[in-house]
Amino acid sequence: MADLKLPSRSEDFSEWYNQLVLRAELADYAPVRGCMIVRPYGWALWENITAQLDRRFKATGHVNAAFPLLIPQSFISKEQSHVAGFSPELAVVTHGGGEKLEEPLVIRPTSETIIGHAYAKWIQSYRDLPVLINQWNSVVRWELRTKLFLRTLEFFWQEGHTAHATLEEAEAETRQMLDIYTDFAVNEAAIPVIPGRKSQSERFAGADATYSIEAMMGDGKALQAGTSHNLGQNFAKAFEIRYLDQAGALQYCWTTSWGLSTRFIGAIIMVHGDDQGLILPPRLAPYQVVIVPIFKSDEEKALVFEAAKKIRDQLVKASIRVKVDEREGQSPGFKFNDWEMRGVSLRMEIGPKDVAKGSVVLARRDRPGKEGKSFVSQEGIAESVEQQLGAIQKALFERALAFRNMHTFEPKNLEEFRVVVEQGFARSYWCGDAKCEEQIKEKTKATLRCIPMEQPGVAGVCIHCGKPANELAIFGKAY
Amino acid sequence: MADLKLPSRSEDFSEWYNQLVLRAELADYAPVRGCMIVRPYGWALWENITAQLDRRFKATGHVNAAFPLLIPQSFISKEQSHVAGFSPELAVVTHGGGEKLEEPLVIRPTSETIIGHAYAKWIQSYRDLPVLINQWNSVVRWELRTKLFLRTLEFFWQEGHTAHATLEEAEAETRQMLDIYTDFAVNEAAIPVIPGRKSQSERFAGADATYSIEAMMGDGKALQAGTSHNLGQNFAKAFEIRYLDQAGALQYCWTTSWGLSTRFIGAIIMVHGDDQGLILPPRLAPYQVVIVPIFKSDEEKALVFEAAKKIRDQLVKASIRVKVDEREGQSPGFKFNDWEMRGVSLRMEIGPKDVAKGSVVLARRDRPGKEGKSFVSQEGIAESVEQQLGAIQKALFERALAFRNMHTFEPKNLEEFRVVVEQGFARSYWCGDAKCEEQIKEKTKATLRCIPMEQPGVAGVCIHCGKPANELAIFGKAY
Repeated sequence: MADLKLPSRSEDFSEWYNQLVLRAELADYAPVRGCMIVRPYGWALWENITAQLDRRFKATGHVNAAFPLLIPQSFISKEQSHVAGFSPELAVVTHGGGEKLEEPLVIRPTSETIIGHAYAKWIQSYRDLPVLINQWNSVVRWELRTKLFLRTLEFFWQEGHTAHATLEEAEAETRQMLDIYTDFAVNEAAIPVIPGRKSQSERFAGADATYSIEAMMGDGKALQAGTSHNLGQNFAKAFEIRYLDQAGALQYCWTTSWGLSTRFIGAIIMVHGDDQGLILPPRLAPYQVVIVPIFKSDEEKALVFEAAKKIRDQLVKASIRVKVDEREGQSPGFKFNDWEMRGVSLRMEIGPKDVAKGSVVLARRDRPGKEGKSFVSQEGIAESVEQQLGAIQKALFERALAFRNMHTFEPKNLEEFRVVVEQGFARSYWCGDAKCEEQIKEKTKATLRCIPMEQPGVAGVCIHCGKPANELAIFGKAY
Repeated sequence: MADLKLPSRSEDFSEWYNQLVLRAELADYAPVRGCMIVRPYGWALWENITAQLDRRFKATGHVNAAFPLLIPQSFISKEQSHVAGFSPELAVVTHGGGEKLEEPLVIRPTSETIIGHAYAKWIQSYRDLPVLINQWNSVVRWELRTKLFLRTLEFFWQEGHTAHATLEEAEAETRQMLDIYTDFAVNEAAIPVIPGRKSQSERFAGADATYSIEAMMGDGKALQAGTSHNLGQNFAKAFEIRYLDQAGALQYCWTTSWGLSTRFIGAIIMVHGDDQGLILPPRLAPYQVVIVPIFKSDEEKALVFEAAKKIRDQLVKASIRVKVDEREGQSPGFKFNDWEMRGVSLRMEIGPKDVAKGSVVLARRDRPGKEGKSFVSQEGIAESVEQQLGAIQKALFERALAFRNMHTFEPKNLEEFRVVVEQGFARSYWCGDAKCEEQIKEKTKATLRCIPMEQPGVAGVCIHCGKPANELAIFGKAY
């Protein structure tokens, strides 16, 4: 399939995306409508994402656990906003073991309720707090319009759930996790994101405050790439999560939840990819380097493979993720295209002449053609590769940031606003009134993505009603 | 809870097990009957198990992926024995997004069918083979009698699914995975297991051959701790998994599947545990060493904590998993009991006198009382700890092996057989007739666990019918 060209990214972004996902063998459609299979190459990417996040979670005192995927349907109804938000999206199990169940079960759309139930049992005293648990799992939400990675009936994610003694601690946790997501997006995925607060209408069902990281895709649209919720005492009251404080008084806990999903893979594709396919940030790429041996005769082949394997061993020793493409019966050109489609950061070509000269050709995935090519000595190859991987990681971030800056506008009025949100983000003051937000959405199809944590610190006027406004918000069309 | 004693293992093995699981905080009951919550301590153990298995899978060329949890109900019926085996155990989703589904979906009880469907699409040519995919996930089977870790409605596992060009390759894969499970059980979990072939009646629903590793629990009963199936062409034919061979002819693939689940945690508990609680093999223990500081005054406390943290840093540097128990308001005695319950391999006690002498007390979990205590210099503490952890790992295996040998019998007739299977395994010749197997089960309640790969190589007579028999089998009462 790799010899067929993708649709052009600029002409049909949506179809470019769909075909890239299939051809890079990241994912495939499942037999059940709206479900996806994450194929080995996509899962290897997800494993690298999970490793980087999990490391950060554990360094901040979180532990992993596993809660069941089946939840009594009645649980969902215990928190008022939660039931309103999730009821329409539930998958319901009515039969088990050949019999009709007395109470239907739902497949978790998220786990606040079942974890709340457990916390009520486990938490007795202030000594038991904080509880800092995360789980890596999948959840099911009955989405009608689906797209691989971005919106599927079942998706894979992590969901963190914590319980605290005070509101302040819960808020600090919520913000800490937002910072961790930001740090991960910027430093691992080379994606500039805007950490911010959601407006009330965009909050998680059951949260007092929702924070998110928002990223700009290659078509100028926004993607919410991770969320962190301060749940206040809403779930604590619904599930009776209480503790005895130091004075012996019974108090409700303050809880949080936060999640990042396989949707993030969609962001990586749409931020970095080009017409040749995927471009992966080196720090997350399943293979950072692919070595393509080039030869004609069997004699040349033996020579080239020997050199290739020596280099591979040096790279492995330096903890660089490398693959030698040993496939028989495929031309180097086919292999080049194939690995470009799959977004491998660096291609190393090695032929008989390179062996003779003690060098190799390195081709950067992020810079097509001559510009990205260099001849590098086999001496100290691991250092050269590491240096180039670092340069690619940096260049990807800078390119994405430049693109976002170029597509972020400060419209003077709603008419301008309507035009610019077709191309990117509008940075506009908003008075805080939900009616203005609603009207903006109706008139422009753009939603309030977030109120960035970083604010200019001066007041302005609302882009919609013209009244005084204290905060700048980011608006955009969203996935 | 740690101050309450467990029921005695010898008096009530079943209740000892149940309470140990809860008190060591490995798992808890979920609100849905038969489901379990794996708590952080239990999940940390599972993460260590998965890391050791995953390493072995990847070293033998396997890759991970993720297939959906929802399967069209009709898929299950496509393979004749499969439907018979799994139909009674299905959880059925009949409603999604508020509407009745046209075709009900089932939550995967295992993934041969949905993976078969995908393989049929992905595999075209001999060049695409072998396909060697594993996934870490959970599955749901509607069990009526459940027990934490051993048999739950939802359980966590890995399921490997491979496709090959020939029967020989598929059989080699099936046996390779059996070897990997054996190696893992012996060298990581310190559990002696018997790798063997299942009789036809005990085969996986849809397999041509099933192999398993069988372990003896502390009550003499058998536990199937991992299985590997040669599926022949059964699923290939049901799902049209075909490839063009080198001659251009269309051929059915040969497939395998293999799995090991959270049930294995049950085996670790029941093989190694004692009346004080869990005993974890050091190679899998979430904490290999717990440091309990002992002090009276604040001055002593400062002194002892400083020394404890210095030691901790040395152990961390040597990649030893260590925890300093800094809990306030709990006595050393409480902490000793608590960590004994949780099965931490080595306890390190450090008080003011130890600080003065530059030594610590090490107490082995596997040897209660004085016998397991030693005074060790703080100089070179990491080496001393490593040595003792190695000794514990070895001692646990040897003790389990000695126990199994002592409880493995070679009864002369069915009367003796009936008696010995109350205490352990019977090693008996079996003629291969399913009727004899059936009758043995009926008369003794013991099942044929496996026909060990290692055979004496001499013929005998069937324990039931007295006819000539070529193979020895292991019989036992099973979990």
